[in-house]
Amino acid sequence: MTTTDINNYTHTQGQQAKTASALMARAPAAVKSRALRALARLLRENVQALQQDNARDLERAVAAGLDAPMVDRLRLTPKVLETCAQGCEQLAAMPDIIGEVSGMKQQPSGIRVGQMRVPIGVFGMIYESRPNVTIEAASLSIKSGNACILRGGSEAIDSNKALARLVVQALQEAGLPEHGVQLVQTTDRAAVGQLIAMPQFVDVIIPRGGKGLIERISAEAKVPVIKHLDGNCHTYVDDPCDLDMAVTVADNAKTQKYSPCNASEGLLVARGVAAQFLPRIGAVYAAKGVQMRACPEALALLQSVADVDVQAATEADWDTEYLAPIISVKVVAGLDEAIAHINQHGSHHTDAILTRDHMHAQRFLRDVDSASVMVNASTRFADGFEYGLGAEIGISTDKFHARGPVGIEGLTSLKWVVLGEGEVRQ
Amino acid sequence: MTTTDINNYTHTQGQQAKTASALMARAPAAVKSRALRALARLLRENVQALQQDNARDLERAVAAGLDAPMVDRLRLTPKVLETCAQGCEQLAAMPDIIGEVSGMKQQPSGIRVGQMRVPIGVFGMIYESRPNVTIEAASLSIKSGNACILRGGSEAIDSNKALARLVVQALQEAGLPEHGVQLVQTTDRAAVGQLIAMPQFVDVIIPRGGKGLIERISAEAKVPVIKHLDGNCHTYVDDPCDLDMAVTVADNAKTQKYSPCNASEGLLVARGVAAQFLPRIGAVYAAKGVQMRACPEALALLQSVADVDVQAATEADWDTEYLAPIISVKVVAGLDEAIAHINQHGSHHTDAILTRDHMHAQRFLRDVDSASVMVNASTRFADGFEYGLGAEIGISTDKFHARGPVGIEGLTSLKWVVLGEGEVRQ
Repeated sequence: MTTTDINNYTHTQGQQAKTASALMARAPAAVKSRALRALARLLRENVQALQQDNARDLERAVAAGLDAPMVDRLRLTPKVLETCAQGCEQLAAMPDIIGEVSGMKQQPSGIRVGQMRVPIGVFGMIYESRPNVTIEAASLSIKSGNACILRGGSEAIDSNKALARLVVQALQEAGLPEHGVQLVQTTDRAAVGQLIAMPQFVDVIIPRGGKGLIERISAEAKVPVIKHLDGNCHTYVDDPCDLDMAVTVADNAKTQKYSPCNASEGLLVARGVAAQFLPRIGAVYAAKGVQMRACPEALALLQSVADVDVQAATEADWDTEYLAPIISVKVVAGLDEAIAHINQHGSHHTDAILTRDHMHAQRFLRDVDSASVMVNASTRFADGFEYGLGAEIGISTDKFHARGPVGIEGLTSLKWVVLGEGEVRQ
Repeated sequence: MTTTDINNYTHTQGQQAKTASALMARAPAAVKSRALRALARLLRENVQALQQDNARDLERAVAAGLDAPMVDRLRLTPKVLETCAQGCEQLAAMPDIIGEVSGMKQQPSGIRVGQMRVPIGVFGMIYESRPNVTIEAASLSIKSGNACILRGGSEAIDSNKALARLVVQALQEAGLPEHGVQLVQTTDRAAVGQLIAMPQFVDVIIPRGGKGLIERISAEAKVPVIKHLDGNCHTYVDDPCDLDMAVTVADNAKTQKYSPCNASEGLLVARGVAAQFLPRIGAVYAAKGVQMRACPEALALLQSVADVDVQAATEADWDTEYLAPIISVKVVAGLDEAIAHINQHGSHHTDAILTRDHMHAQRFLRDVDSASVMVNASTRFADGFEYGLGAEIGISTDKFHARGPVGIEGLTSLKWVVLGEGEVRQ
């Protein structure tokens, strides 16, 4: 396609989304649920066909020399598809928050004023590799009464096209507009540039992917962006603390999975418990092959641990999101230093204190400037499903609009509703 | 100042604001109230001194040939200052929403998850003429636990400097950081360009002023902007409707004041009541010198009204925010056409239906895509004070983050709070 073709194509999609969004916004809860259940059924009925389309993406990926984890993320197994189907059914069963009116109060003038929850309108989503995100985004869009335009990775284009066809079929079965969910069918990169620069059609952009992608989109977008940048998360072991619990939680926060953004990348330990705690967690990490990058004081306490992999931390370590079996370790004087370190070096994503001290817990919750602040729990819990949101369109590291895991509510806004009996302004 | 000087100056203010914001965020409610009451006292104690500083701005304005309404907006009368002082006291008396934890619920894993209301951090405000906005913004910033950087109009620089000195004095009296509220002390325009492009220090920009200013800032800002664009508001007189009420409300919505953004600029009338209603409202508008720009059908019904000032509407009239004694008038078939017209030509600010029909009222509330939707009330009510917000930092025509009148809540965000007893992710 020429640049003009791309512009026309994206413009048309924008216009269609805008038109569809008015119909999606007023769709009754039962109709949206019908579409979601139809989509679940269609996913199950089409497992084989979807795998055939997916196979073309996989072949191309292997031929292009993508590494095994990348190819794995592309794969639509029956299990992945069943999880997608169940996700749709769970959303269908959740209460519908669109149209909810809250806070209706009478004012001195006599008018009653409240707020109604309404869809944002149209969101654009830009993501990479995993084709199942197509279904996650489409189903959240349907449930929240928005229209959306989805731009998946070029490596998953055949899978995404096949999935998007089923979404359109489900929308039509339920009597919803076919343009309620649209996939950008071209893999031309120019389409992304267009999609993020149509404020007349698109209300918000949600990029999901590497930091480079998100920074580029944020810099160029002409509409608001729900950003998810780094997760440099911390676990702080306070004094006093139940050290058995601390070992279990600090272990889980780092090693339950290394790649997620909510895994802890830094371990801070209060001086008063360091001599007891560090050799214990050091042994656990040693057994799992986790490398520690330690401050001099921690280094001294860790070096005698059997099979330990520990080295001196550099300044850069405090600011690094490893996404790997590596963790930075620092002994701090206590709560104040821990909070200061986290606010300076962390990425305002998720940070936890492990403590028995009530005042320390309260201060940590108040003063740590992160989207999720935790007491006596693993940072790995920072997740839309674990928070009971029922779904997650992304995790926001912004403070504006939505912060932390973003579920259906993050795709809505509140409009003011005023009910009167002929009141006028004096 | 040279460009480098301006850059250094603005950068320093940003850094100071960021540092102050952590202290403002954790300030107890009583301390913030103390600062607000001190500010009220200082404003009353310094009426004469403030008027002397204000006189220099007024002299410059007159010498520069500013028109009388502009000069009036600049004037700090004892009444204006007393209103500012009372505003500070009202804010001090309001409940403090910072630190409020809501929705704490246990999840299947055992963790309890809720949300804590916290300040956004640092906001920048850019405004024109009225120096009392300096006090409104400063007091809202203090109450909401944010730090702020204020950039008033160059025509009010002496008044703003004098007011900002009192704000700093009030902060210090209460033991709050002096950089909690900073005024940009230079009138150089380059400072605005800097202020809106420091995402490392400033979390959100709130411009208040003409459409040109707001569009320019939105286009150039590197941080989120709470925008307030046009107010092309409508009053729709439905069938069936209490026509006595409709005359009173449609009169108030247009004529109570012509310049505010929430004044109605368009009057839509259902065909079924047009022949009865239009001559009545036409007589009211004629008596007040309001010009009507009418569709052919309305024109025919209005022409016989004594002393009427009516002319045929052009297509452009439907899209115009007059801010003047002019109103566009259109006869519509009924509810559907009214909603379609409003969504197409309105500015998504504030629109009202006057009706006796419950179903029509519900559909209007749901389907009109505006920040404020009203039943049987004057559009002039769209205002933070009338909505019970206690204060208003602006009115947002965006859907993202804050919509409609923005009070203290619009200057806050919600962070997630997780309380556990050593739970780990499975």
